[in-house]
Amino acid sequence: MKSFLYPKLNPPSFTWVRPDNGDRTEKVHEWIQPLTADSDPEKCKDADFVIVGVPLSRSSISASGASEFPDAFRRLWKGFTTYNLDEDIDLAEMTAVDVGDVPMHVTDIRKCHDNIIAASNALHQHFDTSTVCAIGGDHSITAMMVKGLHHAKPQKKIGILQFDTHFDLRDLTDNGPSNGTPMRNLIESGTVEPSNMYNIGLHGFFNTKDLKQYADEKGVNYFTLRQARKKGIEETVRHCLQELEAKVDTIYLTVDMDVLDIAYAPGVPASTPGGMTTAELLEGVLAAAKHPKVSNMDIVCLDPLKDTQVQPTVKLGTHVFLTFLTGVMLR
Amino acid sequence: MKSFLYPKLNPPSFTWVRPDNGDRTEKVHEWIQPLTADSDPEKCKDADFVIVGVPLSRSSISASGASEFPDAFRRLWKGFTTYNLDEDIDLAEMTAVDVGDVPMHVTDIRKCHDNIIAASNALHQHFDTSTVCAIGGDHSITAMMVKGLHHAKPQKKIGILQFDTHFDLRDLTDNGPSNGTPMRNLIESGTVEPSNMYNIGLHGFFNTKDLKQYADEKGVNYFTLRQARKKGIEETVRHCLQELEAKVDTIYLTVDMDVLDIAYAPGVPASTPGGMTTAELLEGVLAAAKHPKVSNMDIVCLDPLKDTQVQPTVKLGTHVFLTFLTGVMLR
Amino acid sequence: MKSFLYPKLNPPSFTWVRPDNGDRTEKVHEWIQPLTADSDPEKCKDADFVIVGVPLSRSSISASGASEFPDAFRRLWKGFTTYNLDEDIDLAEMTAVDVGDVPMHVTDIRKCHDNIIAASNALHQHFDTSTVCAIGGDHSITAMMVKGLHHAKPQKKIGILQFDTHFDLRDLTDNGPSNGTPMRNLIESGTVEPSNMYNIGLHGFFNTKDLKQYADEKGVNYFTLRQARKKGIEETVRHCLQELEAKVDTIYLTVDMDVLDIAYAPGVPASTPGGMTTAELLEGVLAAAKHPKVSNMDIVCLDPLKDTQVQPTVKLGTHVFLTFLTGVMLR
Amino acid sequence: MKSFLYPKLNPPSFTWVRPDNGDRTEKVHEWIQPLTADSDPEKCKDADFVIVGVPLSRSSISASGASEFPDAFRRLWKGFTTYNLDEDIDLAEMTAVDVGDVPMHVTDIRKCHDNIIAASNALHQHFDTSTVCAIGGDHSITAMMVKGLHHAKPQKKIGILQFDTHFDLRDLTDNGPSNGTPMRNLIESGTVEPSNMYNIGLHGFFNTKDLKQYADEKGVNYFTLRQARKKGIEETVRHCLQELEAKVDTIYLTVDMDVLDIAYAPGVPASTPGGMTTAELLEGVLAAAKHPKVSNMDIVCLDPLKDTQVQPTVKLGTHVFLTFLTGVMLR
Amino acid sequence: MKSFLYPKLNPPSFTWVRPDNGDRTEKVHEWIQPLTADSDPEKCKDADFVIVGVPLSRSSISASGASEFPDAFRRLWKGFTTYNLDEDIDLAEMTAVDVGDVPMHVTDIRKCHDNIIAASNALHQHFDTSTVCAIGGDHSITAMMVKGLHHAKPQKKIGILQFDTHFDLRDLTDNGPSNGTPMRNLIESGTVEPSNMYNIGLHGFFNTKDLKQYADEKGVNYFTLRQARKKGIEETVRHCLQELEAKVDTIYLTVDMDVLDIAYAPGVPASTPGGMTTAELLEGVLAAAKHPKVSNMDIVCLDPLKDTQVQPTVKLGTHVFLTFLTGVMLR
Amino acid sequence: MKSFLYPKLNPPSFTWVRPDNGDRTEKVHEWIQPLTADSDPEKCKDADFVIVGVPLSRSSISASGASEFPDAFRRLWKGFTTYNLDEDIDLAEMTAVDVGDVPMHVTDIRKCHDNIIAASNALHQHFDTSTVCAIGGDHSITAMMVKGLHHAKPQKKIGILQFDTHFDLRDLTDNGPSNGTPMRNLIESGTVEPSNMYNIGLHGFFNTKDLKQYADEKGVNYFTLRQARKKGIEETVRHCLQELEAKVDTIYLTVDMDVLDIAYAPGVPASTPGGMTTAELLEGVLAAAKHPKVSNMDIVCLDPLKDTQVQPTVKLGTHVFLTFLTGVMLR
Repeated sequence: MKSFLYPKLNPPSFTWVRPDNGDRTEKVHEWIQPLTADSDPEKCKDADFVIVGVPLSRSSISASGASEFPDAFRRLWKGFTTYNLDEDIDLAEMTAVDVGDVPMHVTDIRKCHDNIIAASNALHQHFDTSTVCAIGGDHSITAMMVKGLHHAKPQKKIGILQFDTHFDLRDLTDNGPSNGTPMRNLIESGTVEPSNMYNIGLHGFFNTKDLKQYADEKGVNYFTLRQARKKGIEETVRHCLQELEAKVDTIYLTVDMDVLDIAYAPGVPASTPGGMTTAELLEGVLAAAKHPKVSNMDIVCLDPLKDTQVQPTVKLGTHVFLTFLTGVMLR
Repeated sequence: MKSFLYPKLNPPSFTWVRPDNGDRTEKVHEWIQPLTADSDPEKCKDADFVIVGVPLSRSSISASGASEFPDAFRRLWKGFTTYNLDEDIDLAEMTAVDVGDVPMHVTDIRKCHDNIIAASNALHQHFDTSTVCAIGGDHSITAMMVKGLHHAKPQKKIGILQFDTHFDLRDLTDNGPSNGTPMRNLIESGTVEPSNMYNIGLHGFFNTKDLKQYADEKGVNYFTLRQARKKGIEETVRHCLQELEAKVDTIYLTVDMDVLDIAYAPGVPASTPGGMTTAELLEGVLAAAKHPKVSNMDIVCLDPLKDTQVQPTVKLGTHVFLTFLTGVMLR
Repeated sequence: MKSFLYPKLNPPSFTWVRPDNGDRTEKVHEWIQPLTADSDPEKCKDADFVIVGVPLSRSSISASGASEFPDAFRRLWKGFTTYNLDEDIDLAEMTAVDVGDVPMHVTDIRKCHDNIIAASNALHQHFDTSTVCAIGGDHSITAMMVKGLHHAKPQKKIGILQFDTHFDLRDLTDNGPSNGTPMRNLIESGTVEPSNMYNIGLHGFFNTKDLKQYADEKGVNYFTLRQARKKGIEETVRHCLQELEAKVDTIYLTVDMDVLDIAYAPGVPASTPGGMTTAELLEGVLAAAKHPKVSNMDIVCLDPLKDTQVQPTVKLGTHVFLTFLTGVMLR
Repeated sequence: MKSFLYPKLNPPSFTWVRPDNGDRTEKVHEWIQPLTADSDPEKCKDADFVIVGVPLSRSSISASGASEFPDAFRRLWKGFTTYNLDEDIDLAEMTAVDVGDVPMHVTDIRKCHDNIIAASNALHQHFDTSTVCAIGGDHSITAMMVKGLHHAKPQKKIGILQFDTHFDLRDLTDNGPSNGTPMRNLIESGTVEPSNMYNIGLHGFFNTKDLKQYADEKGVNYFTLRQARKKGIEETVRHCLQELEAKVDTIYLTVDMDVLDIAYAPGVPASTPGGMTTAELLEGVLAAAKHPKVSNMDIVCLDPLKDTQVQPTVKLGTHVFLTFLTGVMLR
Repeated sequence: MKSFLYPKLNPPSFTWVRPDNGDRTEKVHEWIQPLTADSDPEKCKDADFVIVGVPLSRSSISASGASEFPDAFRRLWKGFTTYNLDEDIDLAEMTAVDVGDVPMHVTDIRKCHDNIIAASNALHQHFDTSTVCAIGGDHSITAMMVKGLHHAKPQKKIGILQFDTHFDLRDLTDNGPSNGTPMRNLIESGTVEPSNMYNIGLHGFFNTKDLKQYADEKGVNYFTLRQARKKGIEETVRHCLQELEAKVDTIYLTVDMDVLDIAYAPGVPASTPGGMTTAELLEGVLAAAKHPKVSNMDIVCLDPLKDTQVQPTVKLGTHVFLTFLTGVMLR
Repeated sequence: MKSFLYPKLNPPSFTWVRPDNGDRTEKVHEWIQPLTADSDPEKCKDADFVIVGVPLSRSSISASGASEFPDAFRRLWKGFTTYNLDEDIDLAEMTAVDVGDVPMHVTDIRKCHDNIIAASNALHQHFDTSTVCAIGGDHSITAMMVKGLHHAKPQKKIGILQFDTHFDLRDLTDNGPSNGTPMRNLIESGTVEPSNMYNIGLHGFFNTKDLKQYADEKGVNYFTLRQARKKGIEETVRHCLQELEAKVDTIYLTVDMDVLDIAYAPGVPASTPGGMTTAELLEGVLAAAKHPKVSNMDIVCLDPLKDTQVQPTVKLGTHVFLTFLTGVMLR
């Protein structure tokens, strides 16, 4: 199975050359190991973290370059140390492997989605105990990553914690599995029960009324951003996870970067005025990552082509990822 | 009078074509009805909301493209639903009409100002019970909109609630009714009593000392941003409105977008470091809109030509407008 | 068939409101008539020009927002008069109708392509004598537009004149009918004979050697930019058309905006250093349009989301379109 | 009169501090002398060149920041040497004085225009033999500068050489003396005979037909850009000047920067695809400046607020100015 | 000594021309007096504030244009009044002198650093009682400014309060006194005792673990941003100063603008997601300035060449400076 | 010797991962071989082309990020095929090795320059027959690369062909070996005789008169851009090379990208209005490369941090490089 999968994953388009600084691992790009054609996947099967790029955004309703995020993300590793000062822990004490990108087809989106499901399935089987981090891509990939997880571990009940400005519960009969549909997709396919979905961050004028009604009917759980602020972001996350841990075996965290206020995220076309601040999102992600049942995560809808020159959004996306890893280490 | 006025208002330069999605009204551009040459103004005279564009910014001290905001604002309607999730209300349950733009003259600013007064007068007469929303334009338009209101309803005592980094109390003898003068203009013309003016958001090094002295002498009320933060933005607004409601018949809310921190408002050249966050402004506007005596509002000094590529400021301006409408519905 | 088609074309998302300036037609937006739900397509079936938006770019190899060009193009009409000073002719003496956009599916690219073929077919049947102008979208649409033309008028032999930095002869078995394949698509489907294809503008390091060999084997005709400059752009175009007119019944002009030097076309991600100047492209398009057998054209691969603030590329794309119309009037 | 005028001119907002490099004059900012409050205007009355800023653009049809050009222009002097290598001449051998800016009113455009006329009048009287260079501002200032010249030297017949994409012959009854009207203004006021006006650079779809008809009826002379290119820009200029020199006593050169192709002039909102290249404009300006009757010039419609980060357009505007001075020295 | 120093300081490259508005001092550029070649430094030796530009950034690890900040800073003075509304005080009641820039060498960084030490030394001797404000430049200048202070007043024990995302404790043997080393430089040179250093703002993944260990070994004091937020920024500052005042004679405040969140500081390449908000930094600087022992400050690492068009970061840097002055007046 | 050199060169910071497309070499990044720690330099010592990055720009007079060009250049290889269509040749038929970057010191510019000399020396010895291409960096590196060549092959007389807007003959006693001095450096050090230097592209107001006099006194040869245009760029190059080939053994081509017009090169801060077009520079470089004595080249002064979003200048710099290689193959 593994040998079937791995030739199909594209290696990262480039690899960092380790600077000649002895054995020290100081920067993230010196730490995360790419899985190249020559690597032996067996050797890393108990990696703590598995990173997979999912460069698909032609399934996005609006034109999107989110497919460029996995590479933009890797290029920024050099700007981050592995040492987290706030928590005084060093990520380098754990192991991380970058398995490259799920291969995509230019004109057959169905095939792209199938590839993601297959890759997720294979990764979860091979890296049985690892925390899998998918770097999108648009939000349609979440449904596929979760389906792959479900295929790999059908006996496990899956819960979802979602940071998002939107429900992502649009009807698939309109335009197929676009980035507006992943949660509905998972509900309708029976992959995740709606009552095991928790959304934090909804606000403003960015969801139609019928989606809210659908969510209510199905029993999808959600906290608007205002509610979460009142309760405290960290407390809200804890509350959701507490409910979830009683109901499910494994929790998938999906971070739609459009949950952010547009002032913090110029590189997320769907980000909005009135969204989360950077501090709030980081607080929420850290709190989520600390929970032992959170074993998967993704970051989606960040379009590096729209970011401003100094790349604040790509940097923020990378920081969200590292903050997640920090949380895992704090368990 | 009305028939005299309406041919003089320019229709919006474009109209949205209603997508073929049955009778549903989901997006703002499907909801707000433009008043075209063929429309019968009589039929909509009890609209809940009247929107009028006031595309004047050649009266601005610094070069400004705020005249482009009314159209930029209309172009973004498509990106917002009518449903407000935070409050679970649907704007589409009320009626809104876009009466187009006040016509402007290229080289005769006096004439532009006279047109605004005349338009405001006529609109307030015709749409007697509607909430009128003026989309500027620079801040000089506020004096004219309020004067028009005063002409239409001379028996009503008018109060003003202003979100602003500046007093806007400059001397008109220097440079005429520029964007630095509207409050002084209203005082000196006897339209509004200074003690019925409340300004929230002053801060930093953006007002000369003599303007502060003038404000104090005249009895203009103001809360610096720091004071408002200490008390709470919402609480500060409520406090101002409580005082105002005892003194006036109708309250005009003017939102100078330069009250915002420049990180949130790159498209407002006069925005400053240390100004309001998006969350604070939205909180303040919502609180103001809930008061039953607030029957007019404007949004000014937003220059779309200076906004960054993803248009965070134009989006924010539109969100301020929709948040205002939400507050009105919550009364 | 026509009545079946037209409800399927989406109307333009907005329509210009005619300014109140009497009967004069001075600007392009006052001239081109949109075909709305209320229009009677029969009445305009002998329009001189038919404009159709083809907002598809999810079939592009690189992430592209070329799907936004049809609307960006329409928004700029207001900035152009109908009067061409160089030639002293007024486009307003002819008739032009904007039939709206081909409807697209978010996740089914095959369906998008089928819709384009169907729309092209129906348009060429209904507007039998009109010059049809397709506003892309990426270059994959050209194959579909030409196939639709072929279905509508199977007896007519079709020739192609192409301005392009690339051959667009990539193998379809790799990634389907992407923007790198339209010419190969037309060859392999038997729609156009390779010897009836003429490409002007190839240069630099932007085509692989095997594509050149394929072109040579099949007998595709091409002039590199350097060859065209040596001969003169206008003369090169005339030479191609002279050869073509002897071989085909109708000529389809496709303008891939990536033929331009990147200094002139920041909004075309695939434009290159060393490409055509604006003056050269306009000279070539005018010369082509003058030929009576040129009865179709398209403009592709212009991504307004990447254009700089003053929109030089969207303006240039619009100018290319108007220059084409001018050439037709000069016949 | 002079003493009346000079207190009314605003000094430049800043002055360059002369670096401590001995007596050498190497850079333009070391050469041009500002006329400050302490200066004695009598001492410089025979300066070769007089530079006056005319920071008015609120008379522009579209929102414009061209009022910022005089200061942006002065800030760039430091980046240019006084030595012209192409011609091996040193501007520093002549004398140049910067008399500051014409004062403007914020809300009374008529007063702004009157100030320009008065300033031009006084400057031409005081600096009787100097070449006067006006740095705009929008194109409305040209009519005022020429009127002032006419007042100062009523016996002199004035001719105009204009580089422009537009006729600038719009009807003043519509919107007053805006930037679309200067040539008509001069005709209707009897200041310049239409047959003594020569326009080079018209092209494309940027003039309405009726303006062309007006020009023809009045006998305004013009060469389209295409005609000028065919004849040669330098030759075209020489041809115009040859005709003019027989008819007039003094020639005013007005350079509307919108004559440029938009790829060369992102900071000129009205620049167009298909306009002049930098090389062409510089060639034309140099040729014009060599003519002994050209004793005035202006540069208009350059909006530094729209320029891109490295300021290509402001640099180009400054280069046009220095090229003009070079031509004058070559007489 | 003074006469030795002053000819070596470069005057500011330009000086503001005082507008003709009588004796009023309303804007910052009307208030701060430049020290030009003609000034008598004796006359201003008891100025309250001394401002010196330190335009060095070629010592920065990453390519930086922070050397442009002193001039960009001066150009923005015009946009700020001297009156602080929040505190109701007017800076114009104190005196401020701009002594120009420390001269730099293009290719000899050692010489640049020596010049800064010499200038700081001389300034502290001459302006014995003034508060000296150094406008960087990159962070390497801090070590030099402090060394100069130490030379001038060797008997005074110096403490440092630092707002920074980084320790700036890198090893000097690697790459010399770069912008990553100033604190280590001061420790190793014995200029400041590590226990008299207080850093506020560290966070995230921007420091290697060994730097943290070095800080701990040496006894450098620090509060992470999270700790400071929990305690309150103002309270944290007060706490640090309380400890410091017992140990040192004079306190040097250094503001590395990279302590800010990147959303607030696009013009600081090293700013990060998760950093301070504008409000937090201003609160911290104000609190620090109020302490009577804080007699020096600098602002570093702000690169105007990377700022966005409306210059939010340069404005913020200027605001930080003015806020500091305000705090001093509030003592 | 090699073992002395190679450990001192830094490997490229990243390496491209070869896509899994069989043995085909289609894109430049698949062709150029990086010399990593594991490579055997002996095996590639007869490579046709040797590429070395010289990431130094802290020696630049103005703040520059040209040190970022080598990496930006490598990142764009993926966007170019090895096949040149204009000449129908495939670069992949020759061999190219990327030896990485010359190591730089952060605060010791002298050491940086010494490293470049040493690296150039070693490279020219090891790769005795290769054409060496140095990717700058600022123009100061040229003097060092040429000195290294001189050390390696002291018996060879060196000539220089320079494309530049500037003489680069500034006095080294002022500010050391900055980017304004390389030609003077080579003259004064006796490395190259002034009469063997040929400069093409000087123009405008960008050189002081004394530099021109120095050039004339020393006998440096130059063609202004205007002279070169009149004669033809290609013909001018041929003329220079014809003169040079009689006098020298080897010719070093240095391309200062500031020779370009700023419209074509926003990423070259020193580019100017009135400079070369892209087509002219490519024509000149191709002509130069064809000469058999041209065995070295460099590209300098391109600052990717200032380029616009679509990277036109970095693309152009890469195209200049590939065009040079093409010319070499055409010999």
